Amino acid sequence: MTRGRSQQVLVGHWDGRQENRRPDELVVEEPLTIRLDDVTVTTTMRTPGHDFELAAGFCFTEGLLADASVTSIRYCATEPAADAEFNLVTVETDGAPPATPRLGLTTSSCGLCGTESIDALRERLSPLPPASTLLPPDVLAGVPERVVARQDLFGATGGVHAAAVFAADGEPVLVREDIGRHNAVDKVVGRLLLDRLLPARGMGLFVSGRASFEMVQKAWAAGFAELAAVSAPSALAVETAAAAGLRLAGFVRGGKLNLYSPTA
Amino acid sequence: MTRGRSQQVLVGHWDGRQENRRPDELVVEEPLTIRLDDVTVTTTMRTPGHDFELAAGFCFTEGLLADASVTSIRYCATEPAADAEFNLVTVETDGAPPATPRLGLTTSSCGLCGTESIDALRERLSPLPPASTLLPPDVLAGVPERVVARQDLFGATGGVHAAAVFAADGEPVLVREDIGRHNAVDKVVGRLLLDRLLPARGMGLFVSGRASFEMVQKAWAAGFAELAAVSAPSALAVETAAAAGLRLAGFVRGGKLNLYSPTA
Repeated sequence: MTRGRSQQVLVGHWDGRQENRRPDELVVEEPLTIRLDDVTVTTTMRTPGHDFELAAGFCFTEGLLADASVTSIRYCATEPAADAEFNLVTVETDGAPPATPRLGLTTSSCGLCGTESIDALRERLSPLPPASTLLPPDVLAGVPERVVARQDLFGATGGVHAAAVFAADGEPVLVREDIGRHNAVDKVVGRLLLDRLLPARGMGLFVSGRASFEMVQKAWAAGFAELAAVSAPSALAVETAAAAGLRLAGFVRGGKLNLYSPTA
Repeated sequence: MTRGRSQQVLVGHWDGRQENRRPDELVVEEPLTIRLDDVTVTTTMRTPGHDFELAAGFCFTEGLLADASVTSIRYCATEPAADAEFNLVTVETDGAPPATPRLGLTTSSCGLCGTESIDALRERLSPLPPASTLLPPDVLAGVPERVVARQDLFGATGGVHAAAVFAADGEPVLVREDIGRHNAVDKVVGRLLLDRLLPARGMGLFVSGRASFEMVQKAWAAGFAELAAVSAPSALAVETAAAAGLRLAGFVRGGKLNLYSPTA
């Protein structure tokens, strides 16, 4: 079943006084199963489009590639697919990457605490080098406005998250949208990976939502100098950013922002 | 490591002209591993608090309990824990519930499409009975304002989602907050389960974010009459609500809303 990234439906719109039928544009959400070599690593509910980037980015940011390189990415179909007709993508590598399960499938007997989650990242990721190019606050505060101008799907549906890579002058050089905020990040990281632009030194990652632990984990894995989020960070995200040496900005909106790590 | 639901840090606040240090309250995010009888079923990043509800609600809404009843819920610790000190919760049942993996660990050879995801729900969930008590639009449109007044953690941190159960008069009778929007829903459903109030006939579910497929799945599993979301639904969410016979309202904000299923 081929579908685009959005779909029109008729809705009953209540304007506060009466109800009228009118068209509404909805974002498409479909499951995507990602296989890494011979192992099914996840199924994520995603917005079709940039599926190869999403699959590659997911495997990379979750640390599943280890030292292996991606040699090919394909849909389940044996013939090249021109669109997101299929919901299974296989990432093939030149190595024997560890079939590492995601956080949680291996835990100590009494669960993992946040600090141990950070320790687990420290085992596979080195601290980032001191950033030579961090945006001045006034430029960083202007990033969301520059990204939203390129959020086509959000403009149409209001129902999707965006992730963007911004350069040292604050210009968004890559924007991806998805119903899942993690997916949007994996799509931009996947694009950088396929273009051999990782680690993303000297570049920043923008996310349209909150900065949770997993967002910081992905930014760290990709080697970004900073992470800017429109909404709030979690306490664990701030701790993780500090461990990574990643500058974390939150509530980046309305020309203002908070710097969490390092603080001023 | 015992921590509350929020934590204060000093941040560098850029107000558009200059940067000042000031305190900021962050929502706590910690991993919670959920075990069902002898099987680890998930690890979710959650805000501590109402962990037993979250664990029970997750197992229920994901269909993992089948026909079994919950007989006990405990932290990993052998002694009762007074707070969310531990990050592993075990749900014990009187049956041998199927250790059904979550969506995606079993898929057909070429992945699952959205329609097949709905079909999978149809196999385990019956269509909802016709609702005798759906809120008039003007009352439904007022639900978010009534819920936000009870979102303590959101008021403090701005970084959490809420889910609420509302009665036939639009009054929120149960509100839960979490950094994860799915977790917030699982917490309210878990509370209803433990209070033997499921299926939630005659009650509605409110969510502070978007209505994705999984939110509709959880609302359907719990038997709510309607689901009201502050933000946009996905196309698959609308299709799933139609299959369930669940009324779905989106963009419920500012005294307005859209009715997606059934439409007017």
